[in-house]
Amino acid sequence: MTTSVNKTEHAFDKGRLEALLNRRFFYAPAFEIYGGVAGLYDYGPPGSSLQANIIAEWRKHFIIEEHMLELDTTIMTPAPVFETSGHVARFADWMVKDTKTGDVLRADHLVKNVLEARLAGDKEARGLAATPATDDKKKKKKAVKTTAFKLSDEIVEEYETILARLDNYSGADIGELCRKHNLRNPDTDNEVGEPQLFNLMFASSIGPTGQHPGFLRPETAQGHFLNFSRLLEFNNGRVPFASAQIGRSFRNEISPRAGLLRVREFTMAEIEHYVDPEDKKHEHFADVRDVKLILLDRHVQEAGKNSTTVMSVGEAVDKGIIANETLGYFVARIYQFLIKIGINSERLRFRQHMANEMAHYATDCWDAEIQNSTGWTECVGCADRAAYDLTVHSNKTGHPLVVRQALKEPIVTEKEIPEWNKKALGKTYKQDAGVIQKIVESMDQAELAKLKGQLAQGKAVITSSEGNEFEVTPEVLTIELKTLKQSIREYTPNVIEPSFGLGRILYTLLEHSFWSREKDVERGVLSLPPLVAPTKVLIVPLSAREEFDPLVKEVCASPSQPQILTLLLTASFIFVSLVPLGWSQLLASKLRKAGIFSRVDDSNTSIGKRYARNDELGTPFGVTLDFASVQNKTMTLRERDTMDQRIGPIDEVIAVVTELVFGNITWEEACARLPAYDGVQAIE
Amino acid sequence: MTTSVNKTEHAFDKGRLEALLNRRFFYAPAFEIYGGVAGLYDYGPPGSSLQANIIAEWRKHFIIEEHMLELDTTIMTPAPVFETSGHVARFADWMVKDTKTGDVLRADHLVKNVLEARLAGDKEARGLAATPATDDKKKKKKAVKTTAFKLSDEIVEEYETILARLDNYSGADIGELCRKHNLRNPDTDNEVGEPQLFNLMFASSIGPTGQHPGFLRPETAQGHFLNFSRLLEFNNGRVPFASAQIGRSFRNEISPRAGLLRVREFTMAEIEHYVDPEDKKHEHFADVRDVKLILLDRHVQEAGKNSTTVMSVGEAVDKGIIANETLGYFVARIYQFLIKIGINSERLRFRQHMANEMAHYATDCWDAEIQNSTGWTECVGCADRAAYDLTVHSNKTGHPLVVRQALKEPIVTEKEIPEWNKKALGKTYKQDAGVIQKIVESMDQAELAKLKGQLAQGKAVITSSEGNEFEVTPEVLTIELKTLKQSIREYTPNVIEPSFGLGRILYTLLEHSFWSREKDVERGVLSLPPLVAPTKVLIVPLSAREEFDPLVKEVCASPSQPQILTLLLTASFIFVSLVPLGWSQLLASKLRKAGIFSRVDDSNTSIGKRYARNDELGTPFGVTLDFASVQNKTMTLRERDTMDQRIGPIDEVIAVVTELVFGNITWEEACARLPAYDGVQAIE
Repeated sequence: MTTSVNKTEHAFDKGRLEALLNRRFFYAPAFEIYGGVAGLYDYGPPGSSLQANIIAEWRKHFIIEEHMLELDTTIMTPAPVFETSGHVARFADWMVKDTKTGDVLRADHLVKNVLEARLAGDKEARGLAATPATDDKKKKKKAVKTTAFKLSDEIVEEYETILARLDNYSGADIGELCRKHNLRNPDTDNEVGEPQLFNLMFASSIGPTGQHPGFLRPETAQGHFLNFSRLLEFNNGRVPFASAQIGRSFRNEISPRAGLLRVREFTMAEIEHYVDPEDKKHEHFADVRDVKLILLDRHVQEAGKNSTTVMSVGEAVDKGIIANETLGYFVARIYQFLIKIGINSERLRFRQHMANEMAHYATDCWDAEIQNSTGWTECVGCADRAAYDLTVHSNKTGHPLVVRQALKEPIVTEKEIPEWNKKALGKTYKQDAGVIQKIVESMDQAELAKLKGQLAQGKAVITSSEGNEFEVTPEVLTIELKTLKQSIREYTPNVIEPSFGLGRILYTLLEHSFWSREKDVERGVLSLPPLVAPTKVLIVPLSAREEFDPLVKEVCASPSQPQILTLLLTASFIFVSLVPLGWSQLLASKLRKAGIFSRVDDSNTSIGKRYARNDELGTPFGVTLDFASVQNKTMTLRERDTMDQRIGPIDEVIAVVTELVFGNITWEEACARLPAYDGVQAIE
Repeated sequence: MTTSVNKTEHAFDKGRLEALLNRRFFYAPAFEIYGGVAGLYDYGPPGSSLQANIIAEWRKHFIIEEHMLELDTTIMTPAPVFETSGHVARFADWMVKDTKTGDVLRADHLVKNVLEARLAGDKEARGLAATPATDDKKKKKKAVKTTAFKLSDEIVEEYETILARLDNYSGADIGELCRKHNLRNPDTDNEVGEPQLFNLMFASSIGPTGQHPGFLRPETAQGHFLNFSRLLEFNNGRVPFASAQIGRSFRNEISPRAGLLRVREFTMAEIEHYVDPEDKKHEHFADVRDVKLILLDRHVQEAGKNSTTVMSVGEAVDKGIIANETLGYFVARIYQFLIKIGINSERLRFRQHMANEMAHYATDCWDAEIQNSTGWTECVGCADRAAYDLTVHSNKTGHPLVVRQALKEPIVTEKEIPEWNKKALGKTYKQDAGVIQKIVESMDQAELAKLKGQLAQGKAVITSSEGNEFEVTPEVLTIELKTLKQSIREYTPNVIEPSFGLGRILYTLLEHSFWSREKDVERGVLSLPPLVAPTKVLIVPLSAREEFDPLVKEVCASPSQPQILTLLLTASFIFVSLVPLGWSQLLASKLRKAGIFSRVDDSNTSIGKRYARNDELGTPFGVTLDFASVQNKTMTLRERDTMDQRIGPIDEVIAVVTELVFGNITWEEACARLPAYDGVQAIE
């Protein structure tokens, strides 16, 4: 929807947004009346609807359009699964303890916060321009004291390099940094101890005996992999295909502090796309080839830089910056999804993981990072996990997690194959028989051919790795060229995994949508696209008009609701009569049949205040009846961002608002169909 | 959808249903390749879709139609919340240990299984007719050995009484039963120990210090209650209203054995309807008054009986069988929901909880029980939790969870109010002053009026509970009639809670939907209603016709997909040409735009086999093109239950199938619009 409103009049004010989200119950700290628990949040009615709408669009954009196989797997997972996957050993963060208070801090966050505060103090001391508004908020939020103190140019450069490479450091590296740069707990100014690993999985125990340790899954992915054989069978044995799952996961974060951006319990949406490792082309890559993205690749970051490049997906794959077509295809589809739900494309970049930063299973990984008041935040990961997961689970359980591909034409090969006279071998060489067999069977084709030549001349000498020599004869060993025919190719597929943190997407979307009216900073607006807005249409009923009551009862004695609606839309006399009887409910029901979720706001306050409340809830359109328009069977339609009001016949307004909600027409096109209405403007 | 198919030709065969559900990956044991974990299941593609469709209908039937406020709250819950709610002390089952092996059994299940096996053995010994097929399965499933052994008539009656009252026994009662009737572990024939309580919540720990114990929620309800104040504010302070939530919950069951009916992790849908305790009428009760239900009330069960009554909800509320209108309203709405998604109304009853069986918070409770091969299973609970939860959380936290209702007309009352001359009181009575005040302030209005009369005569004598007498004078105490005006009424609302176990509903629905073709027991069918069927329409493409390839390429060189579809539906020549290029994908996309989820089955097997597979997946309709019909631009439509095939113009078939899926027309009506097609019948 295009509008001509200037939304940047007031600088983004995080405090105001947070107050709005709290006041309108988008979300709130969980267990608030018990004092709350860091990193746990509850979604209220508008937050739940917004989340449900984002999920519905995700399901459509990925599962339906790409014919993915949906799964719903278990959260509570027996320990052996995560031992195999590597999570028990490696799914951990480095934490440091305050040496005096025992408070626990995430080590990398400590480094980041302290160094950024020092750099800010340096800028202040140098009398440089204040950093942008968003950065100011960040510092305030983290409560790290900034002192104006000039640093040497070398130190500034060193700090900046450390910050750019931060995700690349080991625990020992961070311990070293803390000592070298005297990094202390900013809350207490105490020293911190050596970094220690803390496993981020919540542990529990399954069953009444206490003998079966379990973990809450930190991702949904393992549930896909363990079901691979069933999924492949469901897909008639064909590859490529993808499974998809939307569900809750848990990470016992060390010290979550960033609202919805770092939480202990969250809803994820994950895709596991299984592909032939020898063919990572994608059937529909041509459809996305020209999608332009902001990229921040591995090499730039490893050089300690932060400069991005705008490039088409096609070019990035052609140049080998993105590893393969399938990875590139999903990066582009992720981009399209995020733009569709309302993320600002200029504040969305794709950052490649550095070598040491990458998860233990991945061979290439790109994060969709969305800019917000705390910086750039990873909201979607898109990793090529190669064959790692399927291989380790298969090895551990003995259950083959492979694709068996019938070859159209069998592969015919000729091979030199050694054949033993086992009896003669044992008799001649006794305890050395095994050693001799091993040596020959580890030979490649060239060595076997050479050996065959020697045997043809009566005997051959073979040498063990320890230097022992053995003489063999054709009586014991013959080597023959045989024709082999392979009609089935068996392989472990590679997995490309787009993984979405829905809470992070939801929060950054709220930041990108929030602004205040030009003339009145108190009037917040959430410009959510109709596609994801919790409520699409606000229905503002007239106040009850009790004088019509007797007439209404007479009219309504017989017809059922749909009939009433028809009457309502055809006869102005009856229509007027029905006003107090809930025309708004009938209208809501008509919109519901058109697939549009509306809400009636019949609270006891002015129409202007009701619109203002619904601007805060992100409701894109509002309809109301004006007393004067009742005789003409007209209704007004209001657009949220412009506050523009139009008027038209009831049926036409319903038709227009339906097309607006489904994105078939723009507001400008709607204006061409409905004349302006100036009568109520004054109320706002 | 009405059909004339006889679906009861073959007795229900649980083994066949389970094989089908496993083969088609409706669901499967979680972590199966690791040996599985009892009570944990993963849903595959058709199970996930079926569940998603049930949830979508639930959201529509309850949240949208009843304007409920949706929530999405946290699973990981700090221990104090469940200490307050009573779950830490009381959310537990009685377990018994095998005295030799240490195996753990649920105590009530042990009693049930052993007594039922003995009763079955008695019937066998008496040479009575075999119990119905479903009962046979039950015994086989539970693997309790049945031995033909005749019991005395008294014992039979005693066992039957115990079974009818089983939910009413305490742990001590069960221990007594085990000793009296020599009930042993049926797997080992060993004795069992004294019943012990086992708490069913999964425990964990929040944060890195290990100092914050937490539990996984066993229900979503507490998340609603803790947010009550925010919800009330969102609803503009008005009551009644309801909150609703769909989400995962966890119960660490002692020995889960009954498939999806008793699991350790499950998806629930819960409603908390907040209502004025003095007015439990429901605005829309008249709409459901005539809904007829099968009821099994508390008194019948407490008398050791099992006989049900058919009664309208209106009558049940009028007679006080169901406690109030709101509870009755929800019981009826639950019934309507279950019938809509395909539960057989004759196998659905509402059973009232007995006094001792009721959860610690409830004042009345009705379970929707659905009959299946294991008996009658609770699938929905509908409890009046009174003010229990809001009161305990409010008392614990000091946060008022109350409604403040502005009274239209203030309540004006006159009251005798004692007023003290504190100085004189202290001086005259010293340490007795407090005692005297207490006595007077605990007096009721009549006593105060009497005292006032005495004081008017100069003095009065008041007596403490210990018998001490005190003389008081008007100098110390005066009593005056004052007018009091109360304009706000403050109260804790009561909560009516309908709580749905979605997995149990899904499983019993699968049992109710399953049957086999008359002539061929191997051909299973799931007659799921289109509303919840995982796939609505099966598209069966013709096999690739490569001879058309060159022509197709020519035709397709320019137009985009929608244009191709238009061509496809208008010109038979082009249509034929496009057959191999994926007309089925285009058709699927057209259906998707109409809101219908279809799937293409292009596997390399006969049309008949593809239809058979989709009968097992519950797909109600199938469309295909017959070679002969290509020139006529017709398509065939097949109905799953009857296997009836019709033919018509492509557009008309699409229109008809759309109306069928949305339930606007019956199959009979469809048949009136599309003539019969006999050409392919033979293939099946």
